[in-house]
Amino acid sequence: MVKHLSTHPYKGTRDFYPEDMAVQRYIFDTWAYVAELYGYERYDASVLEPADLYKSKGAENEELVNEQTYTFLDRGDREVTLRPEMTPTAARMIAAKKRDLSFPVRWYSIPNLFRYERMQRGRLREHWQLNCDLFGIDDYTADVELITLAYNVMTAFGATDDMFEIRINDRAWITEMLEAEGLSPDQVTDMILLLDRKEKIDDFDTKAKHIAGKTIDFSAAPKPSSRLGRVIAGLAVLGITNVRVSLSTVRGFNYYTGVVFEIFDTSTENNRSIGGGGRYDNLTSLFGGDPVPGIGFGMGDVTMRDFLETHGLLTANITAPTLVVVPTEPEHNLEAERVAQQFRAAGVSATVDLGARKLKKKIAAASDALVSYVLVLGDAETATGTFTLKRLTDGTETSGTLEELVAVCASL
Amino acid sequence: MVKHLSTHPYKGTRDFYPEDMAVQRYIFDTWAYVAELYGYERYDASVLEPADLYKSKGAENEELVNEQTYTFLDRGDREVTLRPEMTPTAARMIAAKKRDLSFPVRWYSIPNLFRYERMQRGRLREHWQLNCDLFGIDDYTADVELITLAYNVMTAFGATDDMFEIRINDRAWITEMLEAEGLSPDQVTDMILLLDRKEKIDDFDTKAKHIAGKTIDFSAAPKPSSRLGRVIAGLAVLGITNVRVSLSTVRGFNYYTGVVFEIFDTSTENNRSIGGGGRYDNLTSLFGGDPVPGIGFGMGDVTMRDFLETHGLLTANITAPTLVVVPTEPEHNLEAERVAQQFRAAGVSATVDLGARKLKKKIAAASDALVSYVLVLGDAETATGTFTLKRLTDGTETSGTLEELVAVCASL
Repeated sequence: MVKHLSTHPYKGTRDFYPEDMAVQRYIFDTWAYVAELYGYERYDASVLEPADLYKSKGAENEELVNEQTYTFLDRGDREVTLRPEMTPTAARMIAAKKRDLSFPVRWYSIPNLFRYERMQRGRLREHWQLNCDLFGIDDYTADVELITLAYNVMTAFGATDDMFEIRINDRAWITEMLEAEGLSPDQVTDMILLLDRKEKIDDFDTKAKHIAGKTIDFSAAPKPSSRLGRVIAGLAVLGITNVRVSLSTVRGFNYYTGVVFEIFDTSTENNRSIGGGGRYDNLTSLFGGDPVPGIGFGMGDVTMRDFLETHGLLTANITAPTLVVVPTEPEHNLEAERVAQQFRAAGVSATVDLGARKLKKKIAAASDALVSYVLVLGDAETATGTFTLKRLTDGTETSGTLEELVAVCASL
Repeated sequence: MVKHLSTHPYKGTRDFYPEDMAVQRYIFDTWAYVAELYGYERYDASVLEPADLYKSKGAENEELVNEQTYTFLDRGDREVTLRPEMTPTAARMIAAKKRDLSFPVRWYSIPNLFRYERMQRGRLREHWQLNCDLFGIDDYTADVELITLAYNVMTAFGATDDMFEIRINDRAWITEMLEAEGLSPDQVTDMILLLDRKEKIDDFDTKAKHIAGKTIDFSAAPKPSSRLGRVIAGLAVLGITNVRVSLSTVRGFNYYTGVVFEIFDTSTENNRSIGGGGRYDNLTSLFGGDPVPGIGFGMGDVTMRDFLETHGLLTANITAPTLVVVPTEPEHNLEAERVAQQFRAAGVSATVDLGARKLKKKIAAASDALVSYVLVLGDAETATGTFTLKRLTDGTETSGTLEELVAVCASL
């Protein structure tokens, strides 16, 4: 018995058939449009990175790297990781060309990222993410700009202020506050990691007391830091007011040093973070030399798609050809290709139904594929040199020479 | 002493800084434009594939997979490979939805591909490739179309017929010819693999004699197969005549069954294959059920770039913002963001120089980045509400309200 190969993709990854790709492209194109509207330049790098890039924070982090990433040895005994996030790569690239770059540097990328997930239903091991970063500026207006860009990504998809909120916090402020309560640096780190999970766990208060050795009243909303206040006021000047200070918004990564934020879906069915980021002013110093201040955010394709579906905003960039040339018999296939080629030469996308199906089926298939025109090619057309273009939306027909019909399509 | 992280990318991979990315995007955009001009739809899949996908041909192939690919075990003991080529993935996806798809199916993708290369200078471990495939059509006109598309990719970059040639062959014909000489199926396979390396080795004749057990006169050009003849005649009808039958063009992969071809650079400095492909009529049958005929080709970003550089055709899709707003002092940064936001709202890409550099340096940096306009914002502008737009190409200045200046840029 012949054992057949599975047609499934690797566990936790997705196949993008053209109809899925059209949705993906709609999301990517919108992301790229907004990033470039703000003058961010596109960059990229390999999905393979030296594993060391993610191990900078010592042994505890090393364990995380090994357990939650795809990390393996290559044949030269180099430890390689499939990138789980893009910020370390961006910091590496900035550090490498620090002297040649003209700051402020604004970069964006749409990388695929990997994480090793245990066997949980529906958890993906690969996703794509819009990443925008602004390097070289300490000023609070950089924070304002980046959050404005994230806000504008949402509105570019048609989202309105009631559909999402911007949760904002300041790591430096939280740290100062906890230090003022007498917590040690290690206790502060543990408390921040606990705050990050606050919405997901039931026993926050018990665990917080365990870390601090006493009860800390997080519910007494303290006055925002002056930095946070200026950022929020700046956003208001730019018309952005669906902003809320949230003490439990701290972001998981250790490298954040200042303002952090999340875009949160306000709907009850999909009440979750769609993306976020923050300021990381010391990340490039891991590579030596003076640190370059940075602030960035990421937004995933899966969370974006869930948000758009939840709010009825999902659409797709479908790319059907303008014309399908339909030969009546396979013996006319080559002539049909020659005809199609004349349309292509004028920039009109054209394809030929080379199959052996009946004429009616071929025309129905073109219509299903959202093609604009068909041109049937048989003995009569080949003999006379007169062709007929049929518009599929309303059945209108136009007859003429090829040159005339090319002109009709090219003027669309 | 603090040990710093390296800023180098992983061995054999590339960082794409914005200036590199602009070249990459020029290549990718041109590829996508031509593929869609021919009605090919974009698809994609994960770089991670089950290793079995590349092991279908038994133990010998398994060794190749292990030695020349990135293959590792995940924590669920699944063997995973970073895809070395895209055709098996396309065949897998076609096989999975065979019943739902309306043939002919035309697909293209621009995947990144990986191969494990030993430590050779300049050899890359990751590259990108345009892949175009046409499924469901046996007819020779499908071969003609696919080769025409590959030809058109070259001309879309500005290449002329003297810069490259299309080397074409027919695996079925070669196989018949060798069988007629009395070679066994294994000898035929070995001879085809040897023919693939003919241009790269000195002792072809010796090795060929060793395989066949006798001398085979490859130089006596036999008459092309009738299939090959029809494809070449068909290409001529579409105006493509830089085509040459080449017995040593057999393509490395075992799955090819019919017409195979390569686009070859004719220059003496870069005399190499830029891409190629062929017909593989049985590939989907590995997944069970009736086979779907297929023909496809691939073309790499590195070979494409080398070709374009060799022939002076390389350019880049640079995406500078239209406008840079330049605050005279950091205290005007927020107001500058507010001004930029008004341009963005009209679809004009705009950025703010948030840095603390001198005005002159900021304007010079904008000019270096190929920005079209700058708008300087200081006390006077904030007080009067009258702003001045300076066109950087010729120094022309236009003054007016923000609304008036937005209109100037939006009408570009």
